[in-house]
Amino acid sequence: MNNPQVGIIMGSDSDLPVMQAAADFLKAASVSFEIKVVSAHRTPLRMVEYAQSASDRGLKVIIAGAGGAAHLPGMVASITNLPVIGVPVKSSNSIDGWDSILSILQMPNGIPVATVALNGSKNAGILACRILATNDDALADYLQNYQEEMKTAVLQKSRNVEGKFS
Amino acid sequence: MNNPQVGIIMGSDSDLPVMQAAADFLKAASVSFEIKVVSAHRTPLRMVEYAQSASDRGLKVIIAGAGGAAHLPGMVASITNLPVIGVPVKSSNSIDGWDSILSILQMPNGIPVATVALNGSKNAGILACRILATNDDALADYLQNYQEEMKTAVLQKSRNVEGKFS
Amino acid sequence: MNNPQVGIIMGSDSDLPVMQAAADFLKAASVSFEIKVVSAHRTPLRMVEYAQSASDRGLKVIIAGAGGAAHLPGMVASITNLPVIGVPVKSSNSIDGWDSILSILQMPNGIPVATVALNGSKNAGILACRILATNDDALADYLQNYQEEMKTAVLQKSRNVEGKFS
Amino acid sequence: MNNPQVGIIMGSDSDLPVMQAAADFLKAASVSFEIKVVSAHRTPLRMVEYAQSASDRGLKVIIAGAGGAAHLPGMVASITNLPVIGVPVKSSNSIDGWDSILSILQMPNGIPVATVALNGSKNAGILACRILATNDDALADYLQNYQEEMKTAVLQKSRNVEGKFS
Amino acid sequence: MNNPQVGIIMGSDSDLPVMQAAADFLKAASVSFEIKVVSAHRTPLRMVEYAQSASDRGLKVIIAGAGGAAHLPGMVASITNLPVIGVPVKSSNSIDGWDSILSILQMPNGIPVATVALNGSKNAGILACRILATNDDALADYLQNYQEEMKTAVLQKSRNVEGKFS
Amino acid sequence: MNNPQVGIIMGSDSDLPVMQAAADFLKAASVSFEIKVVSAHRTPLRMVEYAQSASDRGLKVIIAGAGGAAHLPGMVASITNLPVIGVPVKSSNSIDGWDSILSILQMPNGIPVATVALNGSKNAGILACRILATNDDALADYLQNYQEEMKTAVLQKSRNVEGKFS
Amino acid sequence: MNNPQVGIIMGSDSDLPVMQAAADFLKAASVSFEIKVVSAHRTPLRMVEYAQSASDRGLKVIIAGAGGAAHLPGMVASITNLPVIGVPVKSSNSIDGWDSILSILQMPNGIPVATVALNGSKNAGILACRILATNDDALADYLQNYQEEMKTAVLQKSRNVEGKFS
Amino acid sequence: MNNPQVGIIMGSDSDLPVMQAAADFLKAASVSFEIKVVSAHRTPLRMVEYAQSASDRGLKVIIAGAGGAAHLPGMVASITNLPVIGVPVKSSNSIDGWDSILSILQMPNGIPVATVALNGSKNAGILACRILATNDDALADYLQNYQEEMKTAVLQKSRNVEGKFS
Repeated sequence: MNNPQVGIIMGSDSDLPVMQAAADFLKAASVSFEIKVVSAHRTPLRMVEYAQSASDRGLKVIIAGAGGAAHLPGMVASITNLPVIGVPVKSSNSIDGWDSILSILQMPNGIPVATVALNGSKNAGILACRILATNDDALADYLQNYQEEMKTAVLQKSRNVEGKFS
Repeated sequence: MNNPQVGIIMGSDSDLPVMQAAADFLKAASVSFEIKVVSAHRTPLRMVEYAQSASDRGLKVIIAGAGGAAHLPGMVASITNLPVIGVPVKSSNSIDGWDSILSILQMPNGIPVATVALNGSKNAGILACRILATNDDALADYLQNYQEEMKTAVLQKSRNVEGKFS
Repeated sequence: MNNPQVGIIMGSDSDLPVMQAAADFLKAASVSFEIKVVSAHRTPLRMVEYAQSASDRGLKVIIAGAGGAAHLPGMVASITNLPVIGVPVKSSNSIDGWDSILSILQMPNGIPVATVALNGSKNAGILACRILATNDDALADYLQNYQEEMKTAVLQKSRNVEGKFS
Repeated sequence: MNNPQVGIIMGSDSDLPVMQAAADFLKAASVSFEIKVVSAHRTPLRMVEYAQSASDRGLKVIIAGAGGAAHLPGMVASITNLPVIGVPVKSSNSIDGWDSILSILQMPNGIPVATVALNGSKNAGILACRILATNDDALADYLQNYQEEMKTAVLQKSRNVEGKFS
Repeated sequence: MNNPQVGIIMGSDSDLPVMQAAADFLKAASVSFEIKVVSAHRTPLRMVEYAQSASDRGLKVIIAGAGGAAHLPGMVASITNLPVIGVPVKSSNSIDGWDSILSILQMPNGIPVATVALNGSKNAGILACRILATNDDALADYLQNYQEEMKTAVLQKSRNVEGKFS
Repeated sequence: MNNPQVGIIMGSDSDLPVMQAAADFLKAASVSFEIKVVSAHRTPLRMVEYAQSASDRGLKVIIAGAGGAAHLPGMVASITNLPVIGVPVKSSNSIDGWDSILSILQMPNGIPVATVALNGSKNAGILACRILATNDDALADYLQNYQEEMKTAVLQKSRNVEGKFS
Repeated sequence: MNNPQVGIIMGSDSDLPVMQAAADFLKAASVSFEIKVVSAHRTPLRMVEYAQSASDRGLKVIIAGAGGAAHLPGMVASITNLPVIGVPVKSSNSIDGWDSILSILQMPNGIPVATVALNGSKNAGILACRILATNDDALADYLQNYQEEMKTAVLQKSRNVEGKFS
Repeated sequence: MNNPQVGIIMGSDSDLPVMQAAADFLKAASVSFEIKVVSAHRTPLRMVEYAQSASDRGLKVIIAGAGGAAHLPGMVASITNLPVIGVPVKSSNSIDGWDSILSILQMPNGIPVATVALNGSKNAGILACRILATNDDALADYLQNYQEEMKTAVLQKSRNVEGKFS
């Protein structure tokens, strides 16, 4: 996959089952992406290099997922000026996900991270598309169509539920 | 201010002291914006209209701040396909801000909100700029410069602190 | 089922296992109801229409269940003037239910939601009956009888427990 | 005030500054009410008598406010079959209001309490009106009008905010 | 079992698996007790009668276990003057036990409940014995002996652990 | 004051404003007590000696207050077999009192602490009296009378509140 | 194992599955250690003796793990002057680990405990090595090498993840 | 101050009022230290350089304080192999300190941070001394003496408290 527009990184390969949904959405939307394991704590210099080179390599958006004391999204956002989307991952020793959420969300003034819901990597993928779609009409149409499909699916599900009580 | 690129909305005018920082950052960065009170609960249809027309009116990003059971960011994000940045506001009867944070952050799959820190409206302004800067080199330079200034300020502050102990 | 008095709506068909108990109680109490999937986020305009037409269609009470950033009960309550009962559902990625509870409970002044316990849809059904019973003596008798049956069941259970230790 | 339709009770006279807003709304809506201090813990038998006689005395709805280990709303709801609205009060030694909220909200199956937001007694008053309005068209009109006024107030506030940035 | 000194009550027979440990400890310590299901919410008047008659029937201590919005211990303590030990039970829809703990622990001034750990009914049994032992030397000796046995068990367990690493 | 029946200890003299209420209640009830600063962390051996000698010195009940990582009540309860009442104190760097509560309440099986509400030292005094009153009829009468006075005070306060709305 | 440098203690043998990782790391790093069950609550005097003699027996660092109201690390730190590392263990009746964390972390001024993550005993082992390595160059080299190995492992895992998407 | 043994760093000069206590303790103990503002987010590369050079410059221990999404302690610990002590600072927009605590404490396996209490910088200073004292007998004596002084102070305070009640 050449010229990726979105970089998906995660602190550990154990985050892949959660982060997969971001990749899947981007793939379905025909948005090019790369995916890597970049650990803030185990590979700090690799993380610095990744963030420093991201814009020059053509990335437009970075999606970073991590759990526990999740420093990856915020640290990457402190080095690049690209929009960084943070995905709090509920890892095995997480305290119900609170640690992941708070250490991604509560960034100080000056360095924003666009945080999505706990384990919400699908929404990270959609948000990346919404960002890219501000200058890509075809992608905007794709998102519009996706929203219509969600609506249709709800209506079908409603009919199913209604049918059980009629 | 014509042709605003960013729409700043808030659930109540009591949110203005918090939301002001987003407007200030955008103004300093020469990004055009509009600012309104749009209440999800007191003016639901106005909110629907605002979100429905946002893209056609030329908005690229929406910043929505709200407190308590903060539905404004998520509801707007469900109607438009623009990237929506949510600012959890710690309002007077908020439970330490947890209600604002969770009702903005924990959106279901399909409808992302880019959530920033509690009362983090300055970061919402910066994030809006990072999004716009993916297609605006001058704005990207502005952000780069802003980051440099933050660095310089820290170095000066460090010298002050060091001076007190030498 | 014609002329329903109570509308049961839920944000997703995955909420049905929880919301079923409300329907079951209403059915046992011979209170007419309708049941639908109405998503605040996936079908926002359908939600608006549902709430706008509720009173004219003869509904007296609305029970709305949702999980995560649960906006359905509060948004419906902002459009209709009927009493709205909110059921926080502990959905799969919920943070122990706190997100569901706080985004339903912490409504701003002006727009109340009658919130019941986490997953407490049976109580939502009973509360709807208590509301209707303020003008329906037969239903009031039904509730009185139901309360007596609970008492009798406790006494029987107590005898069972006592028997294990005598 | 004869023949009150709504009973407002509170666990302590220190809850009055919070509970006043319920009374104010009912008064403005011309709904008759009574107001008393009834402590679940300091006057348990008085509480039992109050709940037992409530329906016979003509009350249609009970609003009960309490803080800390707030047992008043739930206990009253266990004795009467009227709809009981619970107002969690953030009292002086409350743990940020969590104790009040959870001990009112998390009622077991069989005994619902319609819980409103922390210190949300105004919404308790409005909810009582919504309940009564299911059989009182004039009151329904009053609520409709109140909702319109909220909308108008938001629009005016929005113009004020917009004016500061134009 | 005649002349019980300790009354064990619980809000539901589903609490028995937790509350059993209190009974077991009392039995082992040869302290007479009775055990019943007494629900604050489903049998409020039975609860009042139980608390009113407790002292006259010779009870010295009451152990009350309940989950969720757990009103039983506090309500009983408001009617009797006996020491009441509250056991927060983590019931099925409990929010991680916080609701049970806070609605038992956070009693207002004037009405104490001696709260033990979540699901800590064994400690409730021991605490009841410590209270009775203030006037029962044989029971005090029993407790002393129990404490010695715990110490011995720890030493044995330590040897086992040490053995695995030697 | 000779032959104290109750020992009041606290981890720091900064806890005295909170712990004073326990002493005041005991004094009013004519129950003899002693009061000391005994720090689990700053004077661990003094704490051990205090707990070891408590019963021999004639103490019947110990009230221990502490804040933050509050180890004093639990440690004393592990050395003596007297009933120990724990008062969680909300100290200056406490995290809203959660640390004090959890480190006192959540004792392991075998070592109970009778925990009262945050800053609830008055209730600790009352609970100590309830324990002593299991063998002191005069004290039981005092408590009965105290409960009656609380009831009378509530009735007077209710009349005051009612008067404001008549 | 003679002349242990590190003492690993835990409040219960049920903590061993968690605490094992500390021992494993020390063993791999060729750091001598001892391991024991020392309960603050079930063997308080043994705990005192352990802490009092630790330095004289040649220990340099103590690792103490405990769950619930976890007093062991703090109490040991109050008696010895050695650095004490606290491991909060998520025991069976723990409230999601909050009790363990707060009762270890929130020590008062004067008595520090070096707290690691919930169940983070491996990090306790590494931290003990970092402390010892301040005067042990070989151990410092070992840690440096360990860090390199972590980096290499991440790179390999990244290649695996990348391979799934190429 | 030449050849500092301890490096004190903080994310912002607004952390100085909290972090001062660490410096004060080290100064009183005659332990050499340096103090700087090093922001993980505003000066990420400065932070990397600081951590990379720390050991070579002769530092033995690093104390790092930060608030909100506090990445400084963990990031420094990922680059150096020195023991790093983390001080969670309750900054102005912190959510009661939970964000600071969790983002410092919950480090993944491999990278430990020795976390002290919220705002517990004095304990960070003492812990640094305990670490250094493992190879510095004079410092160990200083700590021993400090502990004795704390004990003496408690005894004096106890006499003052006792005096108020005699």
